[in-house]
Amino acid sequence: MKKDSRLILALDVTSSDRAISLARSLNEYFDAIKIGYPLILSSGLDVVREISSFSQVIADLKVADIPNTNRLICEAVLSAGAGGLIAHAFTGRDSLEACADCVGEHGADLYVVTEMSHPGSRQFMAPLALDLARLAAQVDAAGVVAPATRPERISLIRSAIGSRTIISPGVGAQGGSAREALDAGADYIIVGRSVLQAEDPRAYVKGLLSQMR
Amino acid sequence: MKKDSRLILALDVTSSDRAISLARSLNEYFDAIKIGYPLILSSGLDVVREISSFSQVIADLKVADIPNTNRLICEAVLSAGAGGLIAHAFTGRDSLEACADCVGEHGADLYVVTEMSHPGSRQFMAPLALDLARLAAQVDAAGVVAPATRPERISLIRSAIGSRTIISPGVGAQGGSAREALDAGADYIIVGRSVLQAEDPRAYVKGLLSQMR
Repeated sequence: MKKDSRLILALDVTSSDRAISLARSLNEYFDAIKIGYPLILSSGLDVVREISSFSQVIADLKVADIPNTNRLICEAVLSAGAGGLIAHAFTGRDSLEACADCVGEHGADLYVVTEMSHPGSRQFMAPLALDLARLAAQVDAAGVVAPATRPERISLIRSAIGSRTIISPGVGAQGGSAREALDAGADYIIVGRSVLQAEDPRAYVKGLLSQMR
Repeated sequence: MKKDSRLILALDVTSSDRAISLARSLNEYFDAIKIGYPLILSSGLDVVREISSFSQVIADLKVADIPNTNRLICEAVLSAGAGGLIAHAFTGRDSLEACADCVGEHGADLYVVTEMSHPGSRQFMAPLALDLARLAAQVDAAGVVAPATRPERISLIRSAIGSRTIISPGVGAQGGSAREALDAGADYIIVGRSVLQAEDPRAYVKGLLSQMR
């Protein structure tokens, strides 16, 4: 991704028509569009194919299986056109390497989850976040996912990954601040529900962009 | 599930036609059929609907997201007819509870991953396996997933979950022994590639069942 708006749209809707219409209408404001399983389960991989035709798609599958299954999952979504993929690292090096290899074959970007934006992430993931970030660097991932809801954790995770990209969810509906996340070292802010549920999504994004400047 | 054959088929193929044909042909030997993302990504949820019409389906989605996304994923696959769901616990209590609540609403069974069958599982998951198993008990999951490749871990995990069900992958292609996993406390053995790639899958299963007796 090139840093332009520094914004990624989390396309958290489950209707294919609404997803494609929102993606087209908001595309100009975002560097990438993140698509997860709820939309893919309702719409199939066709929605990834369609949106990949006009935007960079990051497939947020939080891949977390044994190496062979991880490889099959990555192959399916990258063949459908996704240019980025989000995977978990807590399943260990061999599982993450299976994702990294597949992503590499497709010339796509791998983003590794270090810590998440919800409260439960403190229980098992936060104590391991630096180890997970180091593993991301070891498999030469393009970047990591770190929570905008806890900017101090972004700074800490930055210390383990050098210049790799940090993409950061949790702004808006979950309470994180875009400005604070960027100041803490995030490269891209991921926004979803707050945009999609706004009365005027385009106006909301323009407001967010001016806060970020 | 009722304990009958004590076998679960991991339907690890990516062609919908082949999946349905294998499921029909082998159904009589298995208490449930486990379906994962590689097949669902290639075939859509229709394959879950179809196979649920004649077998118990366990959706092996290893759900591992924030609570809201977990709920949407669970709702999609349980609405398609799955009677069981596999989720990760390392994302924390709130995320796992979102799965447990949705599974409860559908009268389905939740199975929680404690430790996995591949080598990488030793890195971050094995040290937490007992905590993950305890969390499974706290959310009143039907059972847990524990690796047949390491029977001593099944015994240990059994100590944390009382009489809940243990389903155990890793037999066959990954090297685990069905007999040893059952002796260590597993209730069900999950087999996939070794059956599906056998020259005569039905004969292979009959041999496996006689070893298990």
